[in-house]
Amino acid sequence: MSDYRDEIVKICRAAAAVRGDCLLLDESSRVKILEEAAGALVSNAKVILAANEKDVSKARSAGMKEGLLDRLYLDEKRIGQIAEGMRQVASLPDPLGQVLDDYTRPNGMRIRKISVPMGVIGIIYESRPNVTADAFALCFKSGNVSILKGGSDAIYTNMAIVDTIRGVLEENSVSPDILQLIPITDRSAAALFMTMREYVDLLIPRGGASLIASVVENSRIPVIETGVGNCHVYVDSDADLKMAKEILINAKTSRVGVCNAAESLVLHKDIADSFLPVLADIACEYSIELRADERSLPFLKGAVPASEEDFAAEYLDLILSVKVVDTLDDAISHINRYHTGHSDCIVTENAKNAQRFLTEIDSACVYHNVSTRFTDGFEFGFGAEIGISTQKLHARGPMGLKELTSYKYEVTGTGQVR
Amino acid sequence: MSDYRDEIVKICRAAAAVRGDCLLLDESSRVKILEEAAGALVSNAKVILAANEKDVSKARSAGMKEGLLDRLYLDEKRIGQIAEGMRQVASLPDPLGQVLDDYTRPNGMRIRKISVPMGVIGIIYESRPNVTADAFALCFKSGNVSILKGGSDAIYTNMAIVDTIRGVLEENSVSPDILQLIPITDRSAAALFMTMREYVDLLIPRGGASLIASVVENSRIPVIETGVGNCHVYVDSDADLKMAKEILINAKTSRVGVCNAAESLVLHKDIADSFLPVLADIACEYSIELRADERSLPFLKGAVPASEEDFAAEYLDLILSVKVVDTLDDAISHINRYHTGHSDCIVTENAKNAQRFLTEIDSACVYHNVSTRFTDGFEFGFGAEIGISTQKLHARGPMGLKELTSYKYEVTGTGQVR
Repeated sequence: MSDYRDEIVKICRAAAAVRGDCLLLDESSRVKILEEAAGALVSNAKVILAANEKDVSKARSAGMKEGLLDRLYLDEKRIGQIAEGMRQVASLPDPLGQVLDDYTRPNGMRIRKISVPMGVIGIIYESRPNVTADAFALCFKSGNVSILKGGSDAIYTNMAIVDTIRGVLEENSVSPDILQLIPITDRSAAALFMTMREYVDLLIPRGGASLIASVVENSRIPVIETGVGNCHVYVDSDADLKMAKEILINAKTSRVGVCNAAESLVLHKDIADSFLPVLADIACEYSIELRADERSLPFLKGAVPASEEDFAAEYLDLILSVKVVDTLDDAISHINRYHTGHSDCIVTENAKNAQRFLTEIDSACVYHNVSTRFTDGFEFGFGAEIGISTQKLHARGPMGLKELTSYKYEVTGTGQVR
Repeated sequence: MSDYRDEIVKICRAAAAVRGDCLLLDESSRVKILEEAAGALVSNAKVILAANEKDVSKARSAGMKEGLLDRLYLDEKRIGQIAEGMRQVASLPDPLGQVLDDYTRPNGMRIRKISVPMGVIGIIYESRPNVTADAFALCFKSGNVSILKGGSDAIYTNMAIVDTIRGVLEENSVSPDILQLIPITDRSAAALFMTMREYVDLLIPRGGASLIASVVENSRIPVIETGVGNCHVYVDSDADLKMAKEILINAKTSRVGVCNAAESLVLHKDIADSFLPVLADIACEYSIELRADERSLPFLKGAVPASEEDFAAEYLDLILSVKVVDTLDDAISHINRYHTGHSDCIVTENAKNAQRFLTEIDSACVYHNVSTRFTDGFEFGFGAEIGISTQKLHARGPMGLKELTSYKYEVTGTGQVR
């Protein structure tokens, strides 16, 4: 492990050394650089695609599955989309220098609470090379230095993207150290990186449950836990069953492999008789495998019995667990016990039940008569997203530019002493 | 270590199980319970003082120094002050249920961002038994369950205080598990407690630099780093030297052992000639030991040369490091290199220099012509304080009730799907 320590310390130290540089760039400079970086990715497409071809053929030889290969693969159209994403981030309102509070104390000192960059943000992620440009754009727009540790599968592509952007930084007389890539593909590099608390202010893992668990377990840097979603749809006794059907279909099937997809259906016993046949039809039409509790199992042809693990599972697949409850209280207890605190929905026409659910379910996003699929920075109107936080510290739910900032207190006076 | 694991898991699990209970208590119930708890501490003073006497005599036999003994010691007056502190927290505005944002998206779904409790908050602290009541009051007022791990020196006192408060909770038909004390004095208990991420949402260490470093290093629970302050006063070339003198005296001497006290003086070379004799007088009058850089040393009788460590030190004592710089840039670089990101002050009549300092110094609180001693929840008007955060995630600077909350998104609609 110690072979890489010096190199990683050097990268992190270089990043920390330019922490203040972003702060000195006014908004128009940051926008200009992001737009030029987007242009450079397009004009440098040949070099990036050649690097990507190296990654893809290496991954294919190593037997990577088609689905994953597709996430790794770039072409001119995809590079165009990446560039377009950067331009969109550039055009968002400046999250820095916002006056969050401004008041004067009885002794005459004025206290202003001002939004500022976090400083150095580390991002650890998996194969998708679009994250490289995306994460840089979000961090840079919010005045932060970024250190990226992408998956080893995409290393050549990531290096080509980072080199392109660093070139643009240099052309603008900005230190390229504002964007760092850890070019070491050895697994130990990520573990070492997570210990660099002295230089890195925040670490955000983007990827599957095991990546996130590993970062949460091992990081010495403050982490924002993102993305694992065991989302529930609860159909209340007073639900509009047609609406419940539409929401369930959307939440379960519109995109199966995403964190805001529903993984579990909870039914009030009073509507179970009417809704279970509807569920059976949906399952049949959309090829959903049902894992049903004792009470629902007899009514669901082809369903298998649900285990304890099923209720806790984030399937990311065409599988749905089903639970029948006696009361709203039981529904709330069941969901708070098994969910991941991501997104949960109640379908009901009863306003009191809806408000109880919204208040008592301990999730980042709680929905009344709306599909869980809306938990997303774009859908929330943030214009961008670095991830969905499932922890309560700092940021919860979709994270946009604002969530990549901190604040400071600027206190001005005329010689006040205490 | 495993001897205590079961007991600590049991405590944390019990706390997590009542996480939702606070949420069901409306504000008036929380206020009533806090006021009754304050009353109970006073009426139960004999029992608490008997327990405190056990702690104090044990500590005295073990050779604890007078200063520390004084922090441990309680009498009726001090219990009255603790109770008064609880009543003050009770009377503060409710931090829960605040609508932080409320907007409707083009598809008609309404998104409301609402302040909610963090959940379960762990506090690890040292000898002072007043923290026990104080931390409970702040956590309970903000709807949180608290798990306290106090210093072993105060164990009997802490148990008596916690038993008194738990009695009040029970009288009000609230689960006493909302307040937990880890009664194990073995050092390994704290280490085990810090691994309970499954049950605890946030961990706040309150104490000296080594306690905080140990929590930051070992915790698996998200931590807010508090309190270490290497605070600077920078006297600019355009300073009002009389004001600089008053601010320096106040920041260095008004309370020596606190985190917002100044530990370092930075002087612009153009005013060094005029200010160094003033500094020498201050040092003499207040018995301050000066650790001076090469340029200031010859002008400061009795000063010793400053080492690299001096510039980084939080003395918490009548010691001050002194550095002369050529430019404002050099002052900013020096401070950003050695400070702890707590509080730093510029004394100047030059508005442009002041704004550069406020913007470029990377601290929680930056001051222009105001003493660093104001970094405090009460002085900032928060009405209470759980600590001073020196990290950028979640909360920065003084932390009051608001900083003990998170938020959730309540999304309501009419069957919106994506």
